[in-house]
Amino acid sequence: MYNSTINTLLNHRSIRKFKDQPLTDEQIKLLVTCAQAASTSSFTQSFSIIGVEDPEIKKELSQISGQSYVEENGYFFVFVADQYRNHQIGDQHDADTSVLDTTQRLTVALGDAAFAAQNMAIAAESMGLGICYIGSIQNNIQRTADLLQLPKYTFPVFGMAVGYPDQTPEKKPRLPFNAVFHKNVYRKTTSNDELNGYDDQVANYYSTRSGGQRNETWTQQIAEGLSAPARMALKPFLEKQQLGKR
Amino acid sequence: MYNSTINTLLNHRSIRKFKDQPLTDEQIKLLVTCAQAASTSSFTQSFSIIGVEDPEIKKELSQISGQSYVEENGYFFVFVADQYRNHQIGDQHDADTSVLDTTQRLTVALGDAAFAAQNMAIAAESMGLGICYIGSIQNNIQRTADLLQLPKYTFPVFGMAVGYPDQTPEKKPRLPFNAVFHKNVYRKTTSNDELNGYDDQVANYYSTRSGGQRNETWTQQIAEGLSAPARMALKPFLEKQQLGKR
Repeated sequence: MYNSTINTLLNHRSIRKFKDQPLTDEQIKLLVTCAQAASTSSFTQSFSIIGVEDPEIKKELSQISGQSYVEENGYFFVFVADQYRNHQIGDQHDADTSVLDTTQRLTVALGDAAFAAQNMAIAAESMGLGICYIGSIQNNIQRTADLLQLPKYTFPVFGMAVGYPDQTPEKKPRLPFNAVFHKNVYRKTTSNDELNGYDDQVANYYSTRSGGQRNETWTQQIAEGLSAPARMALKPFLEKQQLGKR
Repeated sequence: MYNSTINTLLNHRSIRKFKDQPLTDEQIKLLVTCAQAASTSSFTQSFSIIGVEDPEIKKELSQISGQSYVEENGYFFVFVADQYRNHQIGDQHDADTSVLDTTQRLTVALGDAAFAAQNMAIAAESMGLGICYIGSIQNNIQRTADLLQLPKYTFPVFGMAVGYPDQTPEKKPRLPFNAVFHKNVYRKTTSNDELNGYDDQVANYYSTRSGGQRNETWTQQIAEGLSAPARMALKPFLEKQQLGKR
């Protein structure tokens, strides 16, 4: 059953340090075309992709996200959940566009953007490039939207840094199969034995990666991540964009 | 730049008629493992996958979605945006789990589920299988959640029917590159020439597929899709699940 595509999928690791070598126009075009080939809800294609080349915009997005590799990479894409195009088409057809403010339209656009992005990620990795998703462009979502001149009915979901890897990180271990896969109905209790074994694996991964400096288990990391709510501006921003209002 | 993975991505078409041949346990395990290998926001792995084998559950999901291929396929998966596991871990670590009701946690879990699903879709297609996303399991989202016994802090995002294709549909044309790709900033005006050309392509696709019975352009389809709001139960359901409340 294994083939080169499966191997590409299973060998994923995020890359956070890239060589100073820009992608070519042909590479960019192929990556976007692969992204567009993904499934899309009801054929609405409710997403856009912004290729950020302007050094000033990249620099500011890098500051918003707090990640240097937003600026230093082969190319930087932003994936936008986009009901604005549908709104524009509705206007041209004298249709009532008020349905675009529903939660269904918001979630569908987010899904379309994510399918497209994951296709791009896999295409890039199959070409020997590395990628990293950048959710933290939402750290100041209004400023990000202003920089990219995003109209209402859109929002920036995440960025993706792409380029030639200048590091070879270890593969990050994933949860045990049985912690993620359920048969027929959701199984509420994840076995502690399974989670303990996984915690050991993750602690070992961090310890190896940091040369013994970091020694954190996965469940510790999850618990610490709960300490403060993040990106509380997201919900009011979405409402201002006329998304997910009902 | 082309390789077998790129070809798999570019050759995607949704499959809505499958041979009566179930997937093997090895295939299911490999598909889920590929799904798990996808990127995940802050390493939280905020999704679960339910393998629906029970014929009664499949039948009822098929009725909810209105699609026969939810019942008739090689295997049926449901992708769940899942903050329940994080909630459980937080409880075990005496952490304050109240942050899990934020819009950021909702969107992140949806993204994680979508990345995983798209990985599975590509893995399946690389193995010669076909797939179709089933968003319409949300047509009665409460009933779907009840059938799958989903706890609070979770929601069913979409299903995925997988199996051996029993049809060879044409590839559905995608929007012109320039209608989806923007450089540096969002370009508000999609050229009418581009959309007109694309409308012709889509009308031709439908006409060929239906033997001349259907003759609809893409923008017509988009405008008609605006006629009524869909799945208005989604927002109250999410709030009941303690998701996206603030």
